Amino acid sequence: MTGCAGKAQAHGKKASTQQGVASYYSDRFQGRTTASGEPFNQQALTAAHPTLPFGTRVLVSREDNGREVEVLINDRGPYVKGRIIDLSKRAAKELGMLKRGTVPVEISFVQ
Amino acid sequence: MTGCAGKAQAHGKKASTQQGVASYYSDRFQGRTTASGEPFNQQALTAAHPTLPFGTRVLVSREDNGREVEVLINDRGPYVKGRIIDLSKRAAKELGMLKRGTVPVEISFVQ
Repeated sequence: MTGCAGKAQAHGKKASTQQGVASYYSDRFQGRTTASGEPFNQQALTAAHPTLPFGTRVLVSREDNGREVEVLINDRGPYVKGRIIDLSKRAAKELGMLKRGTVPVEISFVQ
Repeated sequence: MTGCAGKAQAHGKKASTQQGVASYYSDRFQGRTTASGEPFNQQALTAAHPTLPFGTRVLVSREDNGREVEVLINDRGPYVKGRIIDLSKRAAKELGMLKRGTVPVEISFVQ
């Protein structure tokens, strides 16, 4: 179910995909204000993306084992070359990447 | 010059050392308030440590190549197992660890 690669349709809109590296937030950021104005919560299924509008739903799939999680964009970042998304700890846990810290992913979303 | 290993003396006080992994701050934290109350600045030579008093000077030495930097503790963290210090970007640059992200270090300080 890592589909949606450029061709998929959802509600009549085209889904886009992007490949790169996902990381997750430091606990240092817990409770701080995100770029959207919402307080950050490690236990919510949210993420930071450089450009996608706040509120965009993004499906994040690990390229190595296919594990997936759906998150809502509510912050800006990551700020490291090659990284495409920063996940909350809960989302990172669902992908099984807490120990490793970073993993290659494909993200898909409807713009 | 990774000395100070338990035996060194400075101003009549004993220096302590600790080994573990160093990481550095995300740009997301730039300008935010640290645990000491100071605004965080990626360009200052500061760091986060779980327990050392704010204002403690710490010498950070890479275990693999001996590169060193001195930082002032002004925040709490890291919050990841095995990590002993989170460095500002400038300090991480002086250690040459920006690309790698994490490196094994020894830290030494006078308590």
